[in-house]
Amino acid sequence: MEFTRRDFFRGSAAAVVAGLVSRVASAADDPLPSWNDGGTKRAILNFVHMTTDRSSSKFVPEPERVATFDQDGTLWVEHPIYTQVVYCFERVPAVVKAKPELANTEPFKTILSGNLEAIEGLSMSDLEKIAAATLTGMSVDEFEELAKNWLDNARDPRWKKLHTELIYQPMLEVLLFMRANGYKTYIVTGGGQDFVRSYSEKTYGIPPEQVVGTAGGTTYGYDKSGKPFLTKDPRLLLNDNNAGKPEGIHLIIGRQPYAAFGNSTGDRQMLEYTKAGDGERLAMLLLHDDAEREYAYGPAQGLPDTKFGTFTQALYDQAKSNGWFVISMKNDWNRIFS
Amino acid sequence: MEFTRRDFFRGSAAAVVAGLVSRVASAADDPLPSWNDGGTKRAILNFVHMTTDRSSSKFVPEPERVATFDQDGTLWVEHPIYTQVVYCFERVPAVVKAKPELANTEPFKTILSGNLEAIEGLSMSDLEKIAAATLTGMSVDEFEELAKNWLDNARDPRWKKLHTELIYQPMLEVLLFMRANGYKTYIVTGGGQDFVRSYSEKTYGIPPEQVVGTAGGTTYGYDKSGKPFLTKDPRLLLNDNNAGKPEGIHLIIGRQPYAAFGNSTGDRQMLEYTKAGDGERLAMLLLHDDAEREYAYGPAQGLPDTKFGTFTQALYDQAKSNGWFVISMKNDWNRIFS
Repeated sequence: MEFTRRDFFRGSAAAVVAGLVSRVASAADDPLPSWNDGGTKRAILNFVHMTTDRSSSKFVPEPERVATFDQDGTLWVEHPIYTQVVYCFERVPAVVKAKPELANTEPFKTILSGNLEAIEGLSMSDLEKIAAATLTGMSVDEFEELAKNWLDNARDPRWKKLHTELIYQPMLEVLLFMRANGYKTYIVTGGGQDFVRSYSEKTYGIPPEQVVGTAGGTTYGYDKSGKPFLTKDPRLLLNDNNAGKPEGIHLIIGRQPYAAFGNSTGDRQMLEYTKAGDGERLAMLLLHDDAEREYAYGPAQGLPDTKFGTFTQALYDQAKSNGWFVISMKNDWNRIFS
Repeated sequence: MEFTRRDFFRGSAAAVVAGLVSRVASAADDPLPSWNDGGTKRAILNFVHMTTDRSSSKFVPEPERVATFDQDGTLWVEHPIYTQVVYCFERVPAVVKAKPELANTEPFKTILSGNLEAIEGLSMSDLEKIAAATLTGMSVDEFEELAKNWLDNARDPRWKKLHTELIYQPMLEVLLFMRANGYKTYIVTGGGQDFVRSYSEKTYGIPPEQVVGTAGGTTYGYDKSGKPFLTKDPRLLLNDNNAGKPEGIHLIIGRQPYAAFGNSTGDRQMLEYTKAGDGERLAMLLLHDDAEREYAYGPAQGLPDTKFGTFTQALYDQAKSNGWFVISMKNDWNRIFS
C-alpha cells in the first residue's frame, strides 16, 4: 500500500488511516502475532486468561504459576542432530590433543575419521563415552566458557546461522506472554543442564536456576592457590528424559507445572504429570510438519521417521484422547524463526 | 513516658512529640531492629548497600543476587536434636503398624522402647535406616501432608511452642531485608529438601523452588485410575552437607551466592565457595553462645561440645582469617524469637 498526498484529501483517506491504525493496534494487542488464528492459539490465550483472572474459578496464585518447556525441537531446531551432540563431536579433537592415547580408541577414532556413515552408526554407549569425555573433567566455569565460545561461532549448515538464532519466534512469544502474566518459565530438557544454562538467559530470558536438564554431579575441590571450585564429573544424577522429566521437575522446582510444552515421546510423562494436577492445565506438543520452512519428521500422521525427536502416532493419539493440543508448525505458525 | 493533657499546652510538648516521632521513624528506617549496633549488623547493612547501589563499584545486577541460608541452627533451633530427626522418630510407630515385622528389628525396636539413652546411642547407619523407613516409600503429596500435619502440632519441649515458631527474628529480618533489596533468598540445608519445603514458604516466605536440601530420588508411576504420581525413594541424589552444599547450589541454582549464612562445620564449604567469587561477598556464622535465651554449644570459644551442629574452634579460626563474620547470639541479638 502506498499513500499519496491526494489520499488524505479524499473521502476515503480517513477510512484507510483508520484501517491501518486498527491493524497496528490489533498487532500490539496480540501477544502471539506469529500464531495463526485457530484452536491452538485460542487455547493458549484462554488458558492464561482463565488462570490469571482473579474472578475466574480457575485462578492460580502467582507463586504457583509454573510453565515448563522442552528445549530441543520445542524452542529451537533439533533436526537432523541435537546441537549439543555437534558440540561434543567438535570438542573431540581438543580432548584427543590433551589425551593422545584416545586417538586410536573407539569411539574417538570414528569421530576423528570424519566418516559420516560410521558416525551415524555410533551406539548410545559410544555417545555416552563421547559425552563423558567432552562434558566432564573440567571446572564448571571452564565448561561454561567453552560452551559460550562455541555457541558464539558454530553455525547451522542449512541456514548458516548461529544455533541461538534458530529459535522459534512463536514459542518466544509464548514465553514472553506467560512471563508477562506472572508465570515462571522453565526449560525442562533432556540436554545437559549446564550446556543449556550457558545460553538460556541471553537467548530466552530464562535464568540458570530455571533450567532443569540432564545433570551430572560435581566435585568440590581447591586449586593450587587454595581457591575452591567445582569439577564436572561423569556420575549421572538426573537423566531428564521420559519419567526423568517429572522427577527432575520435583527435584529442582518442587511444584507441578500448570502448562507444559514438548515435541516428542521424551516429553510424554511431563505432559501427563502436568495435566494430572487440579484445576486448569495446558499441555501442548509441537508437530514438525513443515518440510519447507523447517523440517517434517516423526512418524505421527505418516511423517518420516528419524533417529532423534520421535513424535510417534501413539503419542499423537494419546494427545488427542487426553486433551493435549498438537501444534502444527505448518498451519499454526505464520513465522518460524526470530 | 506518660503524657498528660497539660504537656500539650506546655512549650515542651512539641519537642516531646518530635522526639517520639523521630524514634519511631528511626525504628522504621532500621531494617534490622533485633540486631544490636556493632560490626556484624553494620557488615550486613554495608554489604547490601554496596551490592545494590548503582553507583557502587561492587554493584551486582539483580538477577545475580543470590543469598543462601543454612536452616538448622541458622534460621531455627537445632538443639538438642534436629526437628526432622524427631519427626522421623515419631513416625516409627505408624511405620511399624503398617509393617509389624519391624517391631522386633533394630533400630526400630530401640525407638519403640522409648529408652532415651539407647536412642542417643544409635549409629549413623541406624539413623539412615530410620530415615529411609519414615521419609520414603510414599508419594510426594502424602509426605507433604504428613509433614505439614506433624509441624502443625508438634511442640518443642522447652518452649512448648511449634517448631515453626522457634525461628530467629533477627535472621527473618535479614531474609526480608535482602529480598527487599532484590536478593533471592535460598535455604541450603543438610535437612531433607522435601521436609523443609513443606513449611519454608509459610514460615520464611521461601518458596519450594528456593530450597536446596538433602534429596533422594523419586519414581514416576501411575495409580489404579491411571493418574501419574511420584514416589519418594531411598536412592540418595544429594547429601547437602559439607562439600555437598556448593555441589547442591550448582545443581539447583547454578549461580555462586553473594552472601551465605551458616552455623557449623557443615556450612564451611558453602561459605568458602561464596567468598571465592569476584566482587563483594558476605559470609557469616552464627555462634550459639546464649545459654540463657537459647543454647550455648559447639567447642568454639570453649563452649560445650554436642552431637549435632558442631562449631569447632578450627572453624572459628578460619572465619577470622578468611574475613567471615561470627554472629554472637548473646551480644549481637537483642531478641531471639519472632
